[in-house]
Amino acid sequence: MLNRTARNGGLSVSSYVEGVKSGDRATLARAITLVESTKPEHRDIAKAVLQELLPSTGNAIRLGITGVPGVGKSTTIDQLGMNLIEAGHRVAVLAVDPTSRRTGGSILGDKTRMARLAQEQRAFIRPSPTSGTLGGVARKTRETMAMVEAAGFDIVIVETVGVGQSEVAVADMVDFFLVLLLAGGGDDLQGIKKGIIEIADMIAINKADGDNVVRAEAAAAEYRGALSILTPQSASWKPPVVTISGRTNIGLEALWRKIEEHRLTTTATGEFAERRRAQALSWMQDMLDERLMTALRENPQVAEALPGIEADVRDGRLLPTLAVDRILALMGL
Amino acid sequence: MLNRTARNGGLSVSSYVEGVKSGDRATLARAITLVESTKPEHRDIAKAVLQELLPSTGNAIRLGITGVPGVGKSTTIDQLGMNLIEAGHRVAVLAVDPTSRRTGGSILGDKTRMARLAQEQRAFIRPSPTSGTLGGVARKTRETMAMVEAAGFDIVIVETVGVGQSEVAVADMVDFFLVLLLAGGGDDLQGIKKGIIEIADMIAINKADGDNVVRAEAAAAEYRGALSILTPQSASWKPPVVTISGRTNIGLEALWRKIEEHRLTTTATGEFAERRRAQALSWMQDMLDERLMTALRENPQVAEALPGIEADVRDGRLLPTLAVDRILALMGL
Repeated sequence: MLNRTARNGGLSVSSYVEGVKSGDRATLARAITLVESTKPEHRDIAKAVLQELLPSTGNAIRLGITGVPGVGKSTTIDQLGMNLIEAGHRVAVLAVDPTSRRTGGSILGDKTRMARLAQEQRAFIRPSPTSGTLGGVARKTRETMAMVEAAGFDIVIVETVGVGQSEVAVADMVDFFLVLLLAGGGDDLQGIKKGIIEIADMIAINKADGDNVVRAEAAAAEYRGALSILTPQSASWKPPVVTISGRTNIGLEALWRKIEEHRLTTTATGEFAERRRAQALSWMQDMLDERLMTALRENPQVAEALPGIEADVRDGRLLPTLAVDRILALMGL
Repeated sequence: MLNRTARNGGLSVSSYVEGVKSGDRATLARAITLVESTKPEHRDIAKAVLQELLPSTGNAIRLGITGVPGVGKSTTIDQLGMNLIEAGHRVAVLAVDPTSRRTGGSILGDKTRMARLAQEQRAFIRPSPTSGTLGGVARKTRETMAMVEAAGFDIVIVETVGVGQSEVAVADMVDFFLVLLLAGGGDDLQGIKKGIIEIADMIAINKADGDNVVRAEAAAAEYRGALSILTPQSASWKPPVVTISGRTNIGLEALWRKIEEHRLTTTATGEFAERRRAQALSWMQDMLDERLMTALRENPQVAEALPGIEADVRDGRLLPTLAVDRILALMGL
């Protein structure tokens, strides 16, 4: 398998493995393109490459960042990335955007919006994979993360916008999930999307610069107060609320120190490692569920009967339990 | 099928159906026992009975109630139930408690703690099904709910404690999810679980009586403020925070009016019906996932290989994608 060459003059598995491990950017880019491909022969080679590289992965800090368009994600990531590179790190920036399409692309992972980082040798920016489903994009991003880690990037940032369940998907693949918010106009706080509170490890109010500093600090205080009524999920980490300015590089050092503090604290309690183990298992479980459902939907009899069965269940004409019996019977289970 | 009799002198399907529809309590109780049984012949009859009864279901208000032990759930349900019966309703009380065991029972659905309701002809109290898993308990409770609705109960209360994911399971089978809290001691609010914020349709601070009224109102105001920050601005229903006393029957009328208001408002927007349709589909999907995974784990080769595969994935030795390939290959998929 190691010397197997892809058709049409592709690289062999060992060429990919050696190239990625040596940090060769061109090979890394090709390897990621391979991961993003859905062709069976590409999948086979991608999986073999990843399995070989697995021992070289895991040595990065994985940071997820979300925020609505306009909150200043790209500017903040650009500045944060430059700070980290100056401190000697190698930073990869990935994106999860299920709305991404082949033409028109995505607003995430856009190199024009992270202009300085895009020029750096010690940075690597990759736009979101295009795909039909969030599950597909998540899988490809997880595999891409393994690739860039094996290539020696010690910080991996995964950005997402607030579309559907993409934040939950990203939180499930990172060590730390950061939510960017704005102070909002007048007395209105922006409000937080459903589901984010549970997964946020820190909230940062951006654009805390110039005339906006006071409002940003006030918003931070309100969020802090609101969060205090929630019982913490982890005894060892209370998600802080900070203010930053990505544009003028204010507060990013303190933000990064908190991320490091989280890593130290949760490593000491064992939570850090446990979170990663649980994530690996849920990656497997998610894919298993997805592949089983695909096998189900690809069964011709099921494909034909399913819309009618779902309509009957939805409209209260068919007991869900009996619906399941029927579907499984069509599959011979 | 309609005239099929269960072995050992059980009732026929049509006897169950007629008995339940006529509101006969003894038959209803037997039918629920049938639903709770896992024996295949009982399952067959239960499913046939439920399918026949399906058109007679759906005419109840479904209310979920959660709160930690000590918050006064039983007392509040007892009083609320009596108020509703006095207003002409027929009230069923079910329970979801995955920790429930055959001996020792559950603290939920305990008739001694809802002493007045337990005496009423127009009330029906059933303890939680005992089962190994939350999924099993949830399935049985949903089916029991269908039974009591077909028997003419127009209000179904499903209570749960804050164990694991049981609140999420209950919220997924009711029209309205109520969270009971206490004011807490001194300056400390009781605190609310992060996941509950997402699913609560209303919060009620209990024991707002005697010396405790001021503290309860203060707690309610704090929760109100926090909720307005932590939940989306745009939702059509803003979960209210009220104070009540289950013991002295204060505030329960206003609480019920809010539940009715929610039903009116969300019926007008179509959300009420859409929520029920989505719940029916997710009942089906949950069971499908569960049955597929069971079929998988019951496969002898998979059962043997799975612990080792999971350990390899968890400890970073095996790519999750390859793990899934192996498992599916063992199943011939």
